[in-house]
Amino acid sequence: MVLDLGSRDDEFIAMNQSMRDRLLAIAHAEESHVCVPLQGSGTFIVEATLATLVPKDGKLLVLVNGAYGHRMVKMMQVMGRAVDLIEWPEDEPVEASCLDQALQDDPSISHVAVVHCETTSGILNPIDNIAAVTARHDKALIIDAMSAFGALALDARHTRFDAVMASSNKCLEGVPGMGFAIIRKDALEASSGHAHSLSLDLYAQWTYMEQKGQWRFTPPIQVIAALSKALDQFEEEGGQQGRHNRYQENADILMTGMKDLGFQPLLSDTLQAPIILTFLTPKDEKFVFEDFYNKLKDKGFIIYPGKLTKVSSFRVGCIGHVDANDIKEALQAIKQALSEMGVQDGAP
Amino acid sequence: MVLDLGSRDDEFIAMNQSMRDRLLAIAHAEESHVCVPLQGSGTFIVEATLATLVPKDGKLLVLVNGAYGHRMVKMMQVMGRAVDLIEWPEDEPVEASCLDQALQDDPSISHVAVVHCETTSGILNPIDNIAAVTARHDKALIIDAMSAFGALALDARHTRFDAVMASSNKCLEGVPGMGFAIIRKDALEASSGHAHSLSLDLYAQWTYMEQKGQWRFTPPIQVIAALSKALDQFEEEGGQQGRHNRYQENADILMTGMKDLGFQPLLSDTLQAPIILTFLTPKDEKFVFEDFYNKLKDKGFIIYPGKLTKVSSFRVGCIGHVDANDIKEALQAIKQALSEMGVQDGAP
Repeated sequence: MVLDLGSRDDEFIAMNQSMRDRLLAIAHAEESHVCVPLQGSGTFIVEATLATLVPKDGKLLVLVNGAYGHRMVKMMQVMGRAVDLIEWPEDEPVEASCLDQALQDDPSISHVAVVHCETTSGILNPIDNIAAVTARHDKALIIDAMSAFGALALDARHTRFDAVMASSNKCLEGVPGMGFAIIRKDALEASSGHAHSLSLDLYAQWTYMEQKGQWRFTPPIQVIAALSKALDQFEEEGGQQGRHNRYQENADILMTGMKDLGFQPLLSDTLQAPIILTFLTPKDEKFVFEDFYNKLKDKGFIIYPGKLTKVSSFRVGCIGHVDANDIKEALQAIKQALSEMGVQDGAP
Repeated sequence: MVLDLGSRDDEFIAMNQSMRDRLLAIAHAEESHVCVPLQGSGTFIVEATLATLVPKDGKLLVLVNGAYGHRMVKMMQVMGRAVDLIEWPEDEPVEASCLDQALQDDPSISHVAVVHCETTSGILNPIDNIAAVTARHDKALIIDAMSAFGALALDARHTRFDAVMASSNKCLEGVPGMGFAIIRKDALEASSGHAHSLSLDLYAQWTYMEQKGQWRFTPPIQVIAALSKALDQFEEEGGQQGRHNRYQENADILMTGMKDLGFQPLLSDTLQAPIILTFLTPKDEKFVFEDFYNKLKDKGFIIYPGKLTKVSSFRVGCIGHVDANDIKEALQAIKQALSEMGVQDGAP
């Protein structure tokens, strides 16, 4: 990150091209898709992808089981574009059969959006089943894989999607500041003039980058340099499979250890992605979340300080440059924190 | 930049609040305005400010004498909002008298936008004169000060504006990845629901940040940490006046040295801001810009590789962590590069 490069210089152009190629390869999408990066957080790339791909006379159906699904609905409403949703409880996966029915009932739906791992709860949605239904109805699928990309398998050769969006941080373990979308080339080629915004127009971003190798507007150079290094580490770890294995081990150790302390997860095991685990708030009145958070922080561990679920809960992430030993130490810290607070156990 | 913080943790919240306060103080706007940061490049914060402040039934008049003025016109067109422009040649400043006439002729204009230092040529626009006219007509003024903020004086106590936009890089000498707008509080309070975009809604960004201290969506933590450090250095250097003095010395040495080599600046001295200097392309046929650029790069100096002006020219920046000695060395490198190319002198 301390590397500085001219954003219009050949050295940066080469680094940027290599980054885009490597991101594309993670989804096995070299033949069918292109990678378009964008400045900003994950939300920026999600909004930009929806705005660029869903035409002004299109209609998006969002499969919602958490905050990030709702956010896509909100984006479309702010843009003034047609959007509908099907909603499931936050502890249940979205269902392909309901999507099938909805697409039969409403032929005006042109695009379907779904979150791969809904970070609200950490639930895994059945992307392959969803993709099979959208493909059968010849509808375009847009996947928000912000907290999944790089760790959960997604193969463009077998799973048909028009776009998947993710960011430089999360499972790729870079720093925040850049998002990217992997977009089916023919869908992007047909998207000129769709976007509602100059800054968020991925068609313009792509065509300029293809032509000049440069970003249209000043890129976050240091974030891109950090992501390039993070991709080296990703490849050294064995790519998506290697990263998944480490996160799965992290999640397994954390889950077992938390259950041993009496905590109860929100989700059943089969629905749980190895990304972020949600635990119900203990019933012991001595458990005050803010104290718990601060005690863990003092011991060197930062957990998620807010909840997004409707039920009272808290979340612990399994991702980042963190391994089995770190998780074991975190469990020790959690045990100590409970003891210092005089909390009997984590039972809800 | 190697510092990592939780984006919803108190430590980051304190750093973020301090950064916003310090940016506000640079414009002497503590009493009247608020500072709203945004993820992305300078273009993102310019678009976000226009979208948030100019209501859907408003009309923007842009004073244009270069590419960045034209970009604001384009943004409004993409958003589908009313926009008009007055254009001057790229080597002439915008004129307050023409604005005065335009505001008399078209009472439907609600907002006026202008670029402080138009980076296309490096020209300084007469912000105080423009602000006096917009104030007299009771219109809102929006200033794109991307390449000027922190180096050129702008005092909210004496110059009336509704918003000024800038970014973490440029004269504040941080790294790219974040923009910010300093917005008159009562104008921002009246802007709910104006924005065309969820991500670029500065009203929502501001109200959320005021309420929670956090960013709505993942912030570029390392960029913000770097800007905080850069602001320490800015203050140590004597703030805007100290920074201006160094850049002015850089510009003076560069201008004198380039003239000695026969180069001719695009702008007359009185119009030249000490930010970036534009020189006409030498007439000597042995001068090939790409060779010149690469030779300078080999010697450790990167200049701007593209031109934005209509006339054939190239640009050399005076800003960044660069002082008189660096400029003298750059002049030596330029002299050597000309000699290696067999170019007699820089005369156009």
